[in-house]
Amino acid sequence: MPTRTATARYDGFGKDGQGHLTTQSGVLADQPYGFGTRFGDEPGTNPEELAAAAHAGCFTMALSFALAGAGYSAGRLETKAAVTLDKDGSGFTITKSALTLTAKVDGIEESEFARIAAEAKANCPISKLFNTEITLEHKLEA
Amino acid sequence: MPTRTATARYDGFGKDGQGHLTTQSGVLADQPYGFGTRFGDEPGTNPEELAAAAHAGCFTMALSFALAGAGYSAGRLETKAAVTLDKDGSGFTITKSALTLTAKVDGIEESEFARIAAEAKANCPISKLFNTEITLEHKLEA
Repeated sequence: MPTRTATARYDGFGKDGQGHLTTQSGVLADQPYGFGTRFGDEPGTNPEELAAAAHAGCFTMALSFALAGAGYSAGRLETKAAVTLDKDGSGFTITKSALTLTAKVDGIEESEFARIAAEAKANCPISKLFNTEITLEHKLEA
Repeated sequence: MPTRTATARYDGFGKDGQGHLTTQSGVLADQPYGFGTRFGDEPGTNPEELAAAAHAGCFTMALSFALAGAGYSAGRLETKAAVTLDKDGSGFTITKSALTLTAKVDGIEESEFARIAAEAKANCPISKLFNTEITLEHKLEA
């Protein structure tokens, strides 16, 4: 089974420092990040949107494979993950990852879709990794 | 406090499907991912390297701010996070996030550095989010 890596570099400390992120695949390559892109509104990435991407990506792939396993072959899924960072004493805690799913699945009934989606939410590896509240809302389009 | 988002799209189901990932900041923009980039060796991103980037980025920023708070103003940090996905019955579980840190911090003693690094590992929001084994090895360069 794979081990996947990423590297963060920080030059200087605190608000005067500047971070950069690189992933193994190269989709992030020395990507700037720092206090302003995380806690402020400077354009750029931050750990929370990357955690959201991991969760949206994992859940959506898990649901796609579960639908294939249940015999559905045509359709389209789109999931937005919203990760919230809150103050917690002198530090910060991620308090929620909210999944919002829109789907089109040829031939499925709403009740079966809801059941398969709830299982994918519970069992995808990133859901199991995340020690936070996870919610799922879905809309099944005709 | 900020809520950060990302979106996954999946066209088709199972191994015939194709995923794409987009983050709020735009650093990932309709980035392809799927079975081959996650479980195989196709080039491309996957949820585990994004989780690794979130962890490396969060820990390194937390350590940078903790060092600034302790009065250190010059230096450089580099952290690699390695996230392992293992088979778990019929599914998969993330069993480890291993942090490997190389640092240069002007004027610090090894024992104080080790203490501050261990605190950053314990308290950074992504460490608190991750329900998995987290390890930290560090090397303090002269």
